[in-house]
Amino acid sequence: MTPFTPRATPALGPGSEFDRIRAIWQRLGPHAAEVGDDAAIVHVGGEQLALSCDMAIEGRHFRLDWLHPAELGWRIGASAISDLAAVAAEPIGMLVSVGVPRRLAVEFLPELMAGVGRSAAHTGAVVWGGDLVQSDAVVVDVMVAGRVARPVLRSGALPGDALWVTGRLGGPHEAVAAWLAGREPHAEARARYAKPLPRVREALWLRDHGATALIDVSDGLTGDAGHLAAASGVALAIAAESVPRLPGVEHWESALVGGEEYELLATLPPAFGDEDAGAFAARFALPLTRIGDAAAGQGVRVTRGGQPVELPDAFSHF
Amino acid sequence: MTPFTPRATPALGPGSEFDRIRAIWQRLGPHAAEVGDDAAIVHVGGEQLALSCDMAIEGRHFRLDWLHPAELGWRIGASAISDLAAVAAEPIGMLVSVGVPRRLAVEFLPELMAGVGRSAAHTGAVVWGGDLVQSDAVVVDVMVAGRVARPVLRSGALPGDALWVTGRLGGPHEAVAAWLAGREPHAEARARYAKPLPRVREALWLRDHGATALIDVSDGLTGDAGHLAAASGVALAIAAESVPRLPGVEHWESALVGGEEYELLATLPPAFGDEDAGAFAARFALPLTRIGDAAAGQGVRVTRGGQPVELPDAFSHF
Repeated sequence: MTPFTPRATPALGPGSEFDRIRAIWQRLGPHAAEVGDDAAIVHVGGEQLALSCDMAIEGRHFRLDWLHPAELGWRIGASAISDLAAVAAEPIGMLVSVGVPRRLAVEFLPELMAGVGRSAAHTGAVVWGGDLVQSDAVVVDVMVAGRVARPVLRSGALPGDALWVTGRLGGPHEAVAAWLAGREPHAEARARYAKPLPRVREALWLRDHGATALIDVSDGLTGDAGHLAAASGVALAIAAESVPRLPGVEHWESALVGGEEYELLATLPPAFGDEDAGAFAARFALPLTRIGDAAAGQGVRVTRGGQPVELPDAFSHF
Repeated sequence: MTPFTPRATPALGPGSEFDRIRAIWQRLGPHAAEVGDDAAIVHVGGEQLALSCDMAIEGRHFRLDWLHPAELGWRIGASAISDLAAVAAEPIGMLVSVGVPRRLAVEFLPELMAGVGRSAAHTGAVVWGGDLVQSDAVVVDVMVAGRVARPVLRSGALPGDALWVTGRLGGPHEAVAAWLAGREPHAEARARYAKPLPRVREALWLRDHGATALIDVSDGLTGDAGHLAAASGVALAIAAESVPRLPGVEHWESALVGGEEYELLATLPPAFGDEDAGAFAARFALPLTRIGDAAAGQGVRVTRGGQPVELPDAFSHF
């Protein structure tokens, strides 16, 4: 989700023209609430609810020939749920708005919705309802709601914290690159693209172990590190060789700039060490890897073999 | 909103192919919650929250040359808010997902969002955030949340109740017909299309005065009467000549099949009479008109001068 609030504006890292437009749009917000991160945090009857939405459009975010409809539905649902994980919220339900051409309504649509429903059920959420309209291109917007006891925002990182990432990166980027080159991606990269697993329980564990800031990797590792650095008012240094890559990912850049990973990027205090990371890995069968540090300053600096590296722009599908 | 739940399936009146597809889709719902009406009703922290979403697509639901961008934003926001009014909920906030072509991002988009924000503020709600993506056609999906103390559903009408409608109908239908014919609509019809007013306070009043069932007129009066009749398991008889028309609306059919009115259709017990309707009219400067009755049976029967009439299909934009 893009937060629209005035407070959130400085939280945007540098980015494309569309990012700058988001910033302008946010400054408009005379009717916007003073909340905002990956999800909006809303107080309802003594509880806090996290709410987020995520819109995906055919030809812009996905192509119909890359995935089975149920895989596509899972992927879009999981992408929205990941925004809840990014604030340490527990999903409870979702609304799904779908536009489809009439020719896709009978076979494609129920499969797509079944996939969305399974992504919700996987994290304990239900599909409450939604809207169904005709459109020329497939468009799916998922709004997710979750309970959040104590949100972890992007803005809490402190100088001296270390930067950690869950999982192994680069799979989705290489899968898309393969499809665009007319090849079938290798199995592990395809699986990471087709069935991302929102790190909901992992986020709660990180919160309970002292995470000071949290964000999900949707715009690419360096892009989201930029958002976190800007929101927290710290500088982040990332050692490229420490970023864990999915087996078979050939290009190390894929792990740094590839988007839509839906892994978590967290800052943790210096006391959090390898033994803690080992406990995380044992609990979730998922690596938790230290990839850098927070210091006074601003921006994201990536080094490789001790030398600064220039990276291509953040991941974009087409 | 289209409810996806198994329970909601019989609540669909007869309709187009897309309605039948919605019904199939709903039956899928192994992960769907047992809630569903115009909005989903969710229990959070001792309160009930009503949630709904409404997707509008350029060329399908609107054209960019009919309205100013801010009017379009208001209209889309109000349309979503009307789903909360339809269950007697009070709006608190919304998420807004928007897809726009790059050429519309700088001037059109902030105006559109300002209109959405004003529609929210008008009913006491704020814009929490949303998503912004590039797309070929403009697409806007609004998710609204509201507090609901005691929802009034579509399903509570009883034989012997009378059927009432707020406002004067036919304006939006005639406005669209005029644009499609290359004419500018007359001012009142255009205003009803450009600035619909969700009947939030009116719905609370109707609830407090005994409304047994409630729905907003989004699919056309007879279409929504069909949904209400199906959900309640009653037959509804409507006298066409009693349906209030906006001044300047030439065709009486416009008031019966024209969609996107965002007025309320309510059933009220027989004890509710003209004096009560007068109190409503005085309070809200809006007529409340008795247009028919509920009886044992099913379906909607429309008469004119005592004779049954056949109506064209429910309103469709293009």
